[in-house]
Amino acid sequence: MCFPLSDNGHQVHLWGTWLDDELLEGAKRGRHPRLDRPLPEGVRLFHAPELARAIRDADIILVAVTSEGFLPVFEKLLNTADHLPPVLGLTKGFVESGERVLTVSEGAELAFGSRWPEGKLRWVSVGGPVKAVELAELIPTAAVFGFQGSCEALDMKSMVNAFLRPYYRVFPLSDMRGVELSSALKNIYAMGMGICDGLYEGLGIRYYHNFKALLYNQAIREMALLVSTVGGRRETVFDLAGIGDLFVTSASGRNGIFGRRVGLGGTPQQEYDHMLKAGEVAEGYHTLALAHRYIGQRHGGLIGQLPMFRAIYDVLYGGASPREALLRFAEMHGQRQ
Amino acid sequence: MCFPLSDNGHQVHLWGTWLDDELLEGAKRGRHPRLDRPLPEGVRLFHAPELARAIRDADIILVAVTSEGFLPVFEKLLNTADHLPPVLGLTKGFVESGERVLTVSEGAELAFGSRWPEGKLRWVSVGGPVKAVELAELIPTAAVFGFQGSCEALDMKSMVNAFLRPYYRVFPLSDMRGVELSSALKNIYAMGMGICDGLYEGLGIRYYHNFKALLYNQAIREMALLVSTVGGRRETVFDLAGIGDLFVTSASGRNGIFGRRVGLGGTPQQEYDHMLKAGEVAEGYHTLALAHRYIGQRHGGLIGQLPMFRAIYDVLYGGASPREALLRFAEMHGQRQ
Repeated sequence: MCFPLSDNGHQVHLWGTWLDDELLEGAKRGRHPRLDRPLPEGVRLFHAPELARAIRDADIILVAVTSEGFLPVFEKLLNTADHLPPVLGLTKGFVESGERVLTVSEGAELAFGSRWPEGKLRWVSVGGPVKAVELAELIPTAAVFGFQGSCEALDMKSMVNAFLRPYYRVFPLSDMRGVELSSALKNIYAMGMGICDGLYEGLGIRYYHNFKALLYNQAIREMALLVSTVGGRRETVFDLAGIGDLFVTSASGRNGIFGRRVGLGGTPQQEYDHMLKAGEVAEGYHTLALAHRYIGQRHGGLIGQLPMFRAIYDVLYGGASPREALLRFAEMHGQRQ
Repeated sequence: MCFPLSDNGHQVHLWGTWLDDELLEGAKRGRHPRLDRPLPEGVRLFHAPELARAIRDADIILVAVTSEGFLPVFEKLLNTADHLPPVLGLTKGFVESGERVLTVSEGAELAFGSRWPEGKLRWVSVGGPVKAVELAELIPTAAVFGFQGSCEALDMKSMVNAFLRPYYRVFPLSDMRGVELSSALKNIYAMGMGICDGLYEGLGIRYYHNFKALLYNQAIREMALLVSTVGGRRETVFDLAGIGDLFVTSASGRNGIFGRRVGLGGTPQQEYDHMLKAGEVAEGYHTLALAHRYIGQRHGGLIGQLPMFRAIYDVLYGGASPREALLRFAEMHGQRQ
């Protein structure tokens, strides 16, 4: 996100948590290690203890930590700031508050309310098909900024204009819940499509596009059902935040790779740990466990209408074999109407 | 389609046109040349002059010729049959009747009405993400049977049951127009995604998933707009017939390959002819020209709301360079709201 902001003449402060020293040091030496290229000129880097300086006079704050790290970091932000400008949330997943599972924006609101009980959090959930490394290469990219409430109160126009570039198109959408859930859920379904890849790779079968498309399609159906059940809009899933993002996420990325390893016969926890040691977080694995609890706490009966979700859950947390779970799903799929 | 029918105990007669002798001879010798495997036991093969015998006492007739060949073959069928059982149309595209461009089912109805002015054609349009070669390998596959009118009058239940297998799920959908248009249009948009592949391959850039997802997403948006404008349902596009089929078609197939060659700098007509000589019909190329006329004849103003369609048309019929057309599209895309 530094790139479109810098290209638009904005001053960007990039702060890293206590886990990001290596990234910051790499960037300081001239190359961001993950992007494998220099950051835009003028981006100022801040280490963990320098948060107060990093956010001083900020017009917008972007939060892009993983979902597991979100609440501690966001609370640190709240305790450091004397007021909070609008926040763009790039975190994808769910968070835990005691026994309760919340969406990221719900978690943010809860934490915000503890700090400023009278205040109102201005929050925007970012979604859409965006691999950061490609955006940094200025590949044409489209994103969705999901908000709720009044477009004017959030000054969405200025927010969007801060980012808009010929290579980066931003579409505001008044369905924050739909956007943040799509962003979280697509990681789960991308793991499922990865499991399918691993399964067929293991069987030595190269062409199974029909099944892959069936899974992709079913993922979108289930995401639309889930989103609409919790108050989001189906149309959000049928656009960039859903079909666009799942398209990109299933084509490349850590969640698909993790699923593929499991489909090839790996044990989920071991494969997850293995990737983690290499610095790769398959965030969908954790997201799936929380999503399962989230659905159970709010709409327990819904699980029965999500056969693909269940198949993925059975493989990753229930010890089911990928082959059995996927074929059982394919059979059940036929009974959907 | 022989496989699920045979597996369900139905007698299948496979008739080939005057262009299919080679396929039939190959199948007779033990391997269907395209599928590279034997047909199911019991499938009876019929050459072009044997149409009357092939269709005698048929309960269902499937028509699977290309769109360019559809009308001549269907008229031959009409002139040979003394009555017509329900017809499953697998042809994807548009047909010409004089100056007028029609969908396949409209063309079929017109021809049927000339033969039996008092009769009523029972027609079902088949769609969904189905590569024939994978279905023949029993890869789990889902299809949509689009019909109009009463489910009972067409006896859709028997029709679906004739095909239903654990590996082949069939969903009846009362939106024939939506299904047939989705099937036709997806070939056009798959060419567009192929052009993008060729363009980036030519530039030596390997990762452009963001842009690919943007194009896929825009294709679905435009298909939904087109389908709903001519009386089909948006939901049809947001399911197997649209997002499922475009997923499979953009991942593999002749239209994507054709687009890629053009994206790499080839001249459309030359690349089309080149593929044709190798026995590969990039049907989308012809479909695009007819779709352009179809839209112009019915809803001329709609073209302005289809920037991706226009970009593909400009490249394939207007001499525009893939680079200019795609980048211009990406810019315009930003103004969609």
